[in-house]
Amino acid sequence: MKNYTTIKDISNLSETIKEAILLKMNPFEFQDLGKNKTLVMLFFNSSLRTRLSTEKAAKNLGMDVMILNINDAWNLEFEDGTVMNVNTSEHIKEAAQVISQYADIIAVRAFPTLEDKAKDESEYVLNNFQKYASVPIINMESATAHPLQAMADAITISELTEKKTPKVVLSWAPHPKALPQAVANSFVEMMQDLDVDLTITHPKGYELNPEITRNSTINYDQEDALKDADFVYVKNWSNYNDYGKILSQDENWMMTKAKLGKAKFMHCLPVRRNVVVEDAVLDSGQSVVIEQANNRTFAAQVVLKQLLENI
Amino acid sequence: MKNYTTIKDISNLSETIKEAILLKMNPFEFQDLGKNKTLVMLFFNSSLRTRLSTEKAAKNLGMDVMILNINDAWNLEFEDGTVMNVNTSEHIKEAAQVISQYADIIAVRAFPTLEDKAKDESEYVLNNFQKYASVPIINMESATAHPLQAMADAITISELTEKKTPKVVLSWAPHPKALPQAVANSFVEMMQDLDVDLTITHPKGYELNPEITRNSTINYDQEDALKDADFVYVKNWSNYNDYGKILSQDENWMMTKAKLGKAKFMHCLPVRRNVVVEDAVLDSGQSVVIEQANNRTFAAQVVLKQLLENI
Amino acid sequence: MKNYTTIKDISNLSETIKEAILLKMNPFEFQDLGKNKTLVMLFFNSSLRTRLSTEKAAKNLGMDVMILNINDAWNLEFEDGTVMNVNTSEHIKEAAQVISQYADIIAVRAFPTLEDKAKDESEYVLNNFQKYASVPIINMESATAHPLQAMADAITISELTEKKTPKVVLSWAPHPKALPQAVANSFVEMMQDLDVDLTITHPKGYELNPEITRNSTINYDQEDALKDADFVYVKNWSNYNDYGKILSQDENWMMTKAKLGKAKFMHCLPVRRNVVVEDAVLDSGQSVVIEQANNRTFAAQVVLKQLLENI
Repeated sequence: MKNYTTIKDISNLSETIKEAILLKMNPFEFQDLGKNKTLVMLFFNSSLRTRLSTEKAAKNLGMDVMILNINDAWNLEFEDGTVMNVNTSEHIKEAAQVISQYADIIAVRAFPTLEDKAKDESEYVLNNFQKYASVPIINMESATAHPLQAMADAITISELTEKKTPKVVLSWAPHPKALPQAVANSFVEMMQDLDVDLTITHPKGYELNPEITRNSTINYDQEDALKDADFVYVKNWSNYNDYGKILSQDENWMMTKAKLGKAKFMHCLPVRRNVVVEDAVLDSGQSVVIEQANNRTFAAQVVLKQLLENI
Repeated sequence: MKNYTTIKDISNLSETIKEAILLKMNPFEFQDLGKNKTLVMLFFNSSLRTRLSTEKAAKNLGMDVMILNINDAWNLEFEDGTVMNVNTSEHIKEAAQVISQYADIIAVRAFPTLEDKAKDESEYVLNNFQKYASVPIINMESATAHPLQAMADAITISELTEKKTPKVVLSWAPHPKALPQAVANSFVEMMQDLDVDLTITHPKGYELNPEITRNSTINYDQEDALKDADFVYVKNWSNYNDYGKILSQDENWMMTKAKLGKAKFMHCLPVRRNVVVEDAVLDSGQSVVIEQANNRTFAAQVVLKQLLENI
Repeated sequence: MKNYTTIKDISNLSETIKEAILLKMNPFEFQDLGKNKTLVMLFFNSSLRTRLSTEKAAKNLGMDVMILNINDAWNLEFEDGTVMNVNTSEHIKEAAQVISQYADIIAVRAFPTLEDKAKDESEYVLNNFQKYASVPIINMESATAHPLQAMADAITISELTEKKTPKVVLSWAPHPKALPQAVANSFVEMMQDLDVDLTITHPKGYELNPEITRNSTINYDQEDALKDADFVYVKNWSNYNDYGKILSQDENWMMTKAKLGKAKFMHCLPVRRNVVVEDAVLDSGQSVVIEQANNRTFAAQVVLKQLLENI
């Protein structure tokens, strides 16, 4: 692995999942690998799980970690040729090259604007870091993708499935705030690469990027979609077509115990209780959200391990 | 020790103080104890001494430390059954369980509102972390208690006393801002468990929680209370009865060299000079505030050590 | 070395530069030196390069690092005898003594007001830390000096010069914001101590502190000044005489490829492209700004090493 900006960077998914599960059993086994190696984590947006799990993963491997929460004092310029006489004080060309000298791996979190679709889809923050950095880049959730979360999800399903080809349903849920499509995008892409039977369900008009979903089943009837599901991944996203807008807050799309049937309930967290999913689901043994969050550490650790082995 | 949320969690105080003093003499002796163990420090309120001394203590024991300054981006829900469709984005149930997976010990700082007495006294932040976390919780100053400070104070008095049973006076002082009762509460409780003769002095109406002070002497006459004191602990707190209000800024309650007599002067810091105490006291050899702050490290270290030994 | 607050603290510059270059070749050689030693970094102003390079340098030497971003919650008092009943909540006397107990070395960043010249020139933040701390102090950019940057600049010139006595030009550049004189001041002082031929060029009226520049050549004709230069250091500073003001934004002072001739281009970064310097310079092989930033690590590391050897 040379970078981990999308799940397409994984060369062998099933081997990687197995390796993550081995790391989980013995997290401190490879502490020599990270010795005198530094992970710089750059947060353009705040973070709880990603921050702690990735930092923990790096330290499990013996790495040093340096964390920068980017604030208004550091406005990066991403355009070429700009006369930088207004707000931006440093160009990504310098920033990425400079940080590369203090880091062996750089991890970046940068959310979408949810206003300018073309700009978001260009992944200008992440891609410019990758373009100008001289060290590997890890995506800690970008405008359109969250591959560390998708890796944790894949590990969780692999650990818990009782079938060779489980039925997995991605079910949209209402939410009071406009959220990115990143988690849903990476989850769909990851499921397409796993041996699962994936169905996506959401209100009409809430289609994700069709380039991502084109090989997957979409069923607008939530009840029908959920039938015989083994894993139900619930997630809100704001509208992709009418970009970044909230067109529905239909409470009927909230996940309930009745709808869930015998399936395992998955969510990336944080989750708004009794909006996205009712208490009865989260407080039941069918919820695996805590285990998913636990697997964030080993998702990050297997990625860091593979990157370190390639340095 | 299973948690350290109040001084009641200490099983053997005199042994613990002795152990802290031994750690102070040889702070790096137990570095194997914390190897591959992680302390997560969560700050709902900012911190200087608590932050640095606790982080130092953990590193002295060989632990890794991960620090999260909680900002507005992470609004926790503490009520059961809420429909979380307004401000709160994550429930403490998930947050505490998730962080427990990245941490071996969690330390939490969460100040009172000083507006809602019942809510503050419920210690809903700290107690909910303890309820849902699967690892030990340390109180880095909560709504009503600051047991790490009280432990440092106990160490300081034990080190410096020349008498078997010194006279210790807790003396209220004026302050322009409304401050919590936490430091005073924990100091009183700690002194009640030590072999000292405790007197509390403050303006009438500034009584602390009577459940805490019921076995201690209260004397409204500051001069009389200070007579023959060996240690004088000066501290402001806002009103407990008329909750969170500033009813007095009477400058006559400021500590002076003349009032102090031959006693040692104690304060938890930060201290407002010439408001809480005059320069002549702080700049004299009778002030032990710097030593108290030094002992914050070893208070935290003995707590972490006892928790680590129980994991 | 006892402190590193100005470049005057360096006892043997040429030996120090040689030592830095050796550290660059083998950064992890002295990891025992920093074992169980803690660097506390205090940022009154935010930082990217200084933060990451200094933290990296400390960890390269095996030190622990604790970082505090000072915010409004911690207003320090620097005056003696003040009645602290308004904004300031802690006096530097206590703060510096207390932090000294948690640190083996303290590094401080505190920018000038650019409003009160006398206050800025008193270096009250840095000097008060040095006055009251009981451990060495490192200047991570103060009101009037940036000696870590100047050390990195000296290393860079020493590494890259092809002449015994290169011609070095410090050339003022326009900038939309009022910037400190700190980088320029320390660069001039450093060049005066190196075997270089220094010329300073800037618009009339933009003279730096004459106590600093009195032994250096000032040439108001930029073209003439740049003739046959080997290294051109470009930097904006706000006016020193009409203190902190922007009296010129004359675009003719921007550095261009044509003006640069065959010289190496230097800048401390961050740099505003096409305002301070045109793209053609930064994107050419003549720019050594990335190497300068790399040398920040080894500048900090040689300083930390010399301080640790003296503890």
